[in-house]
Amino acid sequence: MTGSEKKLGPGTVVGIVGGGQLGRMLAQAASSLGMACHIYCNDADTPALDVARSHTVAAYDDEAALADFARAVDVATFEFENIPARTLQLIAAHTLARPSERALAVAQDRLFEKRLFKELDLSTAPYRQVNSLGDLTAAIGEVGCPGLLKTRTLGYDGKGQVRIEEGEGAGAALASIGQVPAIYERIVPFDCELSVISVRSSDGNIVQYDPSENLHSEQMLRLSQVPAHVPVEIMETAKVMARDIVEALEVVGVLAVEFFHIEGAERPLLVNEIAPRVHNSGHWTMDACAVGQFENHIRAICGWPLADPARHSDAVMTNLVGDDLAHWEMLAAHPMAALHIYGKAQARAGRKMGHITQLAPRDSQD
Amino acid sequence: MTGSEKKLGPGTVVGIVGGGQLGRMLAQAASSLGMACHIYCNDADTPALDVARSHTVAAYDDEAALADFARAVDVATFEFENIPARTLQLIAAHTLARPSERALAVAQDRLFEKRLFKELDLSTAPYRQVNSLGDLTAAIGEVGCPGLLKTRTLGYDGKGQVRIEEGEGAGAALASIGQVPAIYERIVPFDCELSVISVRSSDGNIVQYDPSENLHSEQMLRLSQVPAHVPVEIMETAKVMARDIVEALEVVGVLAVEFFHIEGAERPLLVNEIAPRVHNSGHWTMDACAVGQFENHIRAICGWPLADPARHSDAVMTNLVGDDLAHWEMLAAHPMAALHIYGKAQARAGRKMGHITQLAPRDSQD
Repeated sequence: MTGSEKKLGPGTVVGIVGGGQLGRMLAQAASSLGMACHIYCNDADTPALDVARSHTVAAYDDEAALADFARAVDVATFEFENIPARTLQLIAAHTLARPSERALAVAQDRLFEKRLFKELDLSTAPYRQVNSLGDLTAAIGEVGCPGLLKTRTLGYDGKGQVRIEEGEGAGAALASIGQVPAIYERIVPFDCELSVISVRSSDGNIVQYDPSENLHSEQMLRLSQVPAHVPVEIMETAKVMARDIVEALEVVGVLAVEFFHIEGAERPLLVNEIAPRVHNSGHWTMDACAVGQFENHIRAICGWPLADPARHSDAVMTNLVGDDLAHWEMLAAHPMAALHIYGKAQARAGRKMGHITQLAPRDSQD
Repeated sequence: MTGSEKKLGPGTVVGIVGGGQLGRMLAQAASSLGMACHIYCNDADTPALDVARSHTVAAYDDEAALADFARAVDVATFEFENIPARTLQLIAAHTLARPSERALAVAQDRLFEKRLFKELDLSTAPYRQVNSLGDLTAAIGEVGCPGLLKTRTLGYDGKGQVRIEEGEGAGAALASIGQVPAIYERIVPFDCELSVISVRSSDGNIVQYDPSENLHSEQMLRLSQVPAHVPVEIMETAKVMARDIVEALEVVGVLAVEFFHIEGAERPLLVNEIAPRVHNSGHWTMDACAVGQFENHIRAICGWPLADPARHSDAVMTNLVGDDLAHWEMLAAHPMAALHIYGKAQARAGRKMGHITQLAPRDSQD
């Protein structure tokens, strides 16, 4: 893509593959720019449909439906990275699809991710590729315990992974993930997790939000806060590392990079994983910046100028999961807090139902 | 209504009468609370439909369509105050309608408005009721020139009004507004126009955003800014006056009150007019507060706790009118600015197409 490409202005029809909360918030952001959205999803009971002009409910391998969808939109994007390569190819045959096949291919395979990080001289936790029990036994011996056996593809929020302690049976672990191609990765003690949300335009301009510090519980993001409680040099290093990845993948749109921070280590930031899409750890940007990650993703894929990522407030974003929304009245009464509820009909344990972002005046120290 | 009324939580279906930009932004706000919207409008080519779950396109006097609409929603509200009384009655017969018939009846008639202000001992520009040429001639003699002859009903953005200078023919002026019931009001020189956006919950709680200073051009709002450049006492007085009106009308939802500020006058604030709805001069609240006027209106009509109206940033909101959006790329590149484009297909002279809110750190002086 070049700087002289066609601009997709107000009135653009944006196609969004996936109808969950990320698709919903992308559609809301696109509507603020005077655009209309067409959602493609495989489930009619999905949150994004209520805020979109039109939708297609069909399987992700329905070639005719995908082609019709692609022809009906000016540009297509994705709320999740685990889209089958064939689906993406079918869409890209008929319309502009962003991010590109390459960015998605790398991000949906943990091995490809790790190889990219190595090429870029970015540190990661020690790991080995695992295709067999022999590989796993060797890997445990080489990188040590405890560790995580992770499927190369289709993992998220702790799904597709199993922890292996010293002396435990490798065979059972491999069986538990279905004997699929995997990696084994040493669990490295870290002081905190950071993430950086970067946005790259089609002409190569990059903007980056301030790094957030993330807390997980039960392998799901629970809370993100800015500013992160790490030295400024660490934040700057994280941004540089994230930029390297965005540039290498030539992403057009948002890319999230997660890091482990190890205080005092020779290389104090390890890259954990990436997502070439709007990301839960960037939800705070909607309320603490003039323009958040969702709108900046839409701007990027449509060739608009990217918006200033400076934050006007400090923020703590907390996910509302499972039954948390039973307390919606209490949550709604928090002063200086922005509540976002995703409109999901059923609250199931572990299901992300919304989030709340508490704002505070910017700490003058940072 | 009492404090113990049924709460309309996430999942509520909100009916919105009117499909313009105010309906669109109300629908976007409702969706952030996990609600779905049903728009009732008389034009299929209208901005709100793209962000709503469902819609009815029918005339505002289509009794069957109104009844079906009312039955399909949990609560109904309005993006404009000039809704026929009969329309409102039909809706209110089948569902909760907010604000109430009384608030709308007062706000849609300039004479009723003025009488309310007098009851509350709030000053206005001098005026007289005009039902005939004789009334008008007498009114001009009593309150002086120049002045404005305004239709009692259906006026907005300078429509339904005509300026009368000293010595000009009263008959021509009355003919130009169609000989309908009117008021004649002296034009009072003022230093600035202020407005206050108040929100009242069904249990009588009231929150108020900071007063904005408004600039008009060609009888349409061009710009609103906070903080207003008036003394703090004036801001406080404006808030108290607005509160008196909100309480008198028992509005549930947003009520906007416009004032003229006359520096050094014995009564330095004259009430100009009111609107029992979200208001153009409150658009800045979307981006400079954790929760803006649109969401607070939805919260109020659904019985939710009202959100804190404190602003985290100073703001200047500028309307984008007519061809202004031809410059969307330049507008999109403003740092720390939030752009809102309404998705209207046709840009006509004088048509509101969007707005942009420039944020700045809060001035520590105020």
